[in-house]
Amino acid sequence: MSGRFITLEGGEGVGKSTQIAALTAALAAHGVEVVATREPGGSAGAEVIRALLMEGSDDRWDARSEALLFAAARADHVARTIRPALARGAWVLCDRFVDSSRAYQGGGGGITDADILALHGFGSLGLLPDRTFLLTVSADEAARRLAVRDAGGGDRMGSKPADYQARLVARFNEMAASDPARWRIVDADAPAAAVTAAIFAELTEWLP
Amino acid sequence: MSGRFITLEGGEGVGKSTQIAALTAALAAHGVEVVATREPGGSAGAEVIRALLMEGSDDRWDARSEALLFAAARADHVARTIRPALARGAWVLCDRFVDSSRAYQGGGGGITDADILALHGFGSLGLLPDRTFLLTVSADEAARRLAVRDAGGGDRMGSKPADYQARLVARFNEMAASDPARWRIVDADAPAAAVTAAIFAELTEWLP
Repeated sequence: MSGRFITLEGGEGVGKSTQIAALTAALAAHGVEVVATREPGGSAGAEVIRALLMEGSDDRWDARSEALLFAAARADHVARTIRPALARGAWVLCDRFVDSSRAYQGGGGGITDADILALHGFGSLGLLPDRTFLLTVSADEAARRLAVRDAGGGDRMGSKPADYQARLVARFNEMAASDPARWRIVDADAPAAAVTAAIFAELTEWLP
Repeated sequence: MSGRFITLEGGEGVGKSTQIAALTAALAAHGVEVVATREPGGSAGAEVIRALLMEGSDDRWDARSEALLFAAARADHVARTIRPALARGAWVLCDRFVDSSRAYQGGGGGITDADILALHGFGSLGLLPDRTFLLTVSADEAARRLAVRDAGGGDRMGSKPADYQARLVARFNEMAASDPARWRIVDADAPAAAVTAAIFAELTEWLP
């Protein structure tokens, strides 16, 4: 039997890691083995590549090298963590996946969405999630959460200006609209427990 | 004015680095600014990626992750070292380039030559050398040189069996035959100074 591959997407500070933890507990209570993971990273090789991507100055990598490094990390993560877990029947909950590359790298610096999908097709044989949840928050709430987080120091990926975050949200919404069978949009302004319940309700069809 | 981009290719132990040093001196004597470099590596980011590729066990990376890492390193090398040097009129002499990826990665593990060229098209906008020298040695001479080198310890890339080296040489020869305008085949069993002279003779048309 094969497990289920679930991803959470969205801008910075929408609560993805909080939801992954809560969903892991809720699924475990139903007897599901859960592998909770995140990108970039999620396997030994991918975590080493993650360090190259997150550390250093904004211009450490040009857009093409960066996209190739993300694809390399994802290929390792898929080959070493995600596919083996799915093969033994576990569910994989992943904080960001190829859709984050499409939103963050695709469309900027001359790199198209088709480029990102071609790299994913080569590196990870095009693996896509069974279901992807787009967590959305109001602009005011996003700014408030980011202000709290940034007090702890940023990295190469976070801490971009508000108009950049708005373009990101727009690209995520376009992707969700283009593939409604895979995507679900979740209002993450709601209390965390209500968000968990809304996501969980969209997974019960697959419970053992 | 734009410089010239020259690469040296071939199996392990054919004398590429010795020839790069000798050619750098010979060209400098003609007033040519030379940037001598090598792959993987050749720029700050690419050298960091090189360490990921050369260190660790044989199975540290699967074939797809490895091909993406090579392409990422090459993209950084091209963007940060090679293109700026060519733009200011310098000649770039590079020890291995995309043809090594085609010989070493392409054709194994389900990865085709077209895949490698597609990654190169994305990462480095398909930059190809003006001239590529394939250094060939007899099988006996290659074995002798590798035995000397291996006494110093190997890495993830060197130290493969003899039949693997034979397949590599065959792939290099195929590439050279398919694009005679770019490639020159050089007999590297000859003394080093004679090899340098043979290569240099194929570059004089471009001297200032």
